[in-house]
Amino acid sequence: MKIRIGISGYGNIGKGVEKAILQNPDMELAAVFTRRDPEKLIINTPGVKVYNIDEAENMTDKIDVVILCGGSSKDLPEQGPKFVSMFNTVDSFDTHAKIPEYLEMMNKAAINKTAVISAGWDPGLFSMMRMMSGAILPDGADYTFWGRGVSQGHSDVIGMLDGVKKTNEKKFAVQYTVPYEDAVNEVRSGSNPQLTARQKMLRECYVVAEDGADRAKIESEIKNMPNFFADYNTIVNFITEEEFVKNHSKMPHGGLVFRSGKTGENKQIMEFSLKLESNPEFTASVLVAYARAAYRLSQEGNFGAKTVLDVPLIYLSPKERNMLVKELL
Amino acid sequence: MKIRIGISGYGNIGKGVEKAILQNPDMELAAVFTRRDPEKLIINTPGVKVYNIDEAENMTDKIDVVILCGGSSKDLPEQGPKFVSMFNTVDSFDTHAKIPEYLEMMNKAAINKTAVISAGWDPGLFSMMRMMSGAILPDGADYTFWGRGVSQGHSDVIGMLDGVKKTNEKKFAVQYTVPYEDAVNEVRSGSNPQLTARQKMLRECYVVAEDGADRAKIESEIKNMPNFFADYNTIVNFITEEEFVKNHSKMPHGGLVFRSGKTGENKQIMEFSLKLESNPEFTASVLVAYARAAYRLSQEGNFGAKTVLDVPLIYLSPKERNMLVKELL
Repeated sequence: MKIRIGISGYGNIGKGVEKAILQNPDMELAAVFTRRDPEKLIINTPGVKVYNIDEAENMTDKIDVVILCGGSSKDLPEQGPKFVSMFNTVDSFDTHAKIPEYLEMMNKAAINKTAVISAGWDPGLFSMMRMMSGAILPDGADYTFWGRGVSQGHSDVIGMLDGVKKTNEKKFAVQYTVPYEDAVNEVRSGSNPQLTARQKMLRECYVVAEDGADRAKIESEIKNMPNFFADYNTIVNFITEEEFVKNHSKMPHGGLVFRSGKTGENKQIMEFSLKLESNPEFTASVLVAYARAAYRLSQEGNFGAKTVLDVPLIYLSPKERNMLVKELL
Repeated sequence: MKIRIGISGYGNIGKGVEKAILQNPDMELAAVFTRRDPEKLIINTPGVKVYNIDEAENMTDKIDVVILCGGSSKDLPEQGPKFVSMFNTVDSFDTHAKIPEYLEMMNKAAINKTAVISAGWDPGLFSMMRMMSGAILPDGADYTFWGRGVSQGHSDVIGMLDGVKKTNEKKFAVQYTVPYEDAVNEVRSGSNPQLTARQKMLRECYVVAEDGADRAKIESEIKNMPNFFADYNTIVNFITEEEFVKNHSKMPHGGLVFRSGKTGENKQIMEFSLKLESNPEFTASVLVAYARAAYRLSQEGNFGAKTVLDVPLIYLSPKERNMLVKELL
């Protein structure tokens, strides 16, 4: 019997989950939940129904794991506890500062169910690498570089500025986080440099301005925005709508986690990197692997809210332990 | 109270474990076991005693975890089951083909104790990466490159040849496994090439010949040795003893595990790499982190033989879960 997956929220990540399920023969898509009008939402998988999110409570016997694909700021804090009281869940909650609070909230609600929270790549895989490499090389330093890739948060905040072209559907602004190659190479050399955020990465923006907008003002507002841009070198490029659609519609991303450590007199370097043509599809693929883990943990009665640090890797694979030991060790 | 570690076998890895313990304030070295005469073995940690390996059975209340640092071919199959009947253990058993058998043997012997087997970097960390990346990107291909670094097995087998200089202590032959940069870059590009072993790496040997030895014969014997060399491009350099000692006494190693996969139409690449100035010290550092895990698992009554795939990453760290969630996620 296949693991029956529900998707809550049919944005970029939800669509990625739908695709990823097709790559995993031990899983099937059972339902999609939306806050929009279910009649109007057309999904890609034939024969699968779309429901209003409030109908989920009637489907507890038809779904094994719900993958929560809503946003971290508003959707997940509200939907997470509600869903995990009824289903096993997986999400990619990524508001770093609020993860402890969210974990506690989910754990309280996950009475007879299992939740895996914050299971994307950062937080997620990158967290696992920091954990593992820090434990193995306690005398050392961590470095994380993000990019080259689109930062959704930074893109959104630019899109909201006056004078930046926007429709109901879409904002015409994108921000690429670009690591400085020199900084990456310095870290790779094992020299353990002290690097400020500004020394590590550049913020490269592509913006479509409305006709007659004050471009100098937009540029200045971006560059001086606290938290988002003020502490970084930022480049703002104004482009046409046509160019924006043609060249900036994909969502690539990636990054690196380094641990540069010492044992005795010897330098030891661990590096984990991702080069992703589609950030949401990759995140979705991680979520789907952790959905398998959540399902198995719940089958064993191991309930409550877990993080990627808590789940043995073997739970991610559809293969038998014997086979994995034989093939991978 | 500190975790009390015993070391069995005081070779390169045993010495590395001794150093690694100093970097982990929650641990202390309790004893070293040897098959040699304990009186004659001088270790680096003041105040710690050396015992004959047969005395271990009298020390079950003084040691929490024994790190087994013997060889995989003869030592571990004999010592592993014996030790794990008395102590929690960790080892880096690395005869890939025999791991399933060793796991079963250790699991049978680990009645009230916990063993973590094959916990180095390959098998070990590389196995974890293959497992994780394969589960996340099921539609894709794996690539492992080893090096640039010393292969102990290949070095040993050259050292045993007639005409290669050797003493009781030491063989004057070293083999570096060197990945071809072109092959690595081709994989990094995401083109999923089919690569033979020969296309992936070069075997570079440095050998001190005995006076009057037939160098051409040695070279030919190396290059045509089945399994070890015949399927690879091999370079044999004859050097002086002086040069050997000066330039080839360190044991660097490293390598890369790639997963190059697809989601929908998008290429996704995961890469994990190690650049190690000391292979044995790094392996030892991994073992020490897993010793902490073995100790904790046994404290929870989770007995039996485990692999790195079975152990949640959080068990590797001395820090509290709350702190790890806050700092790493």
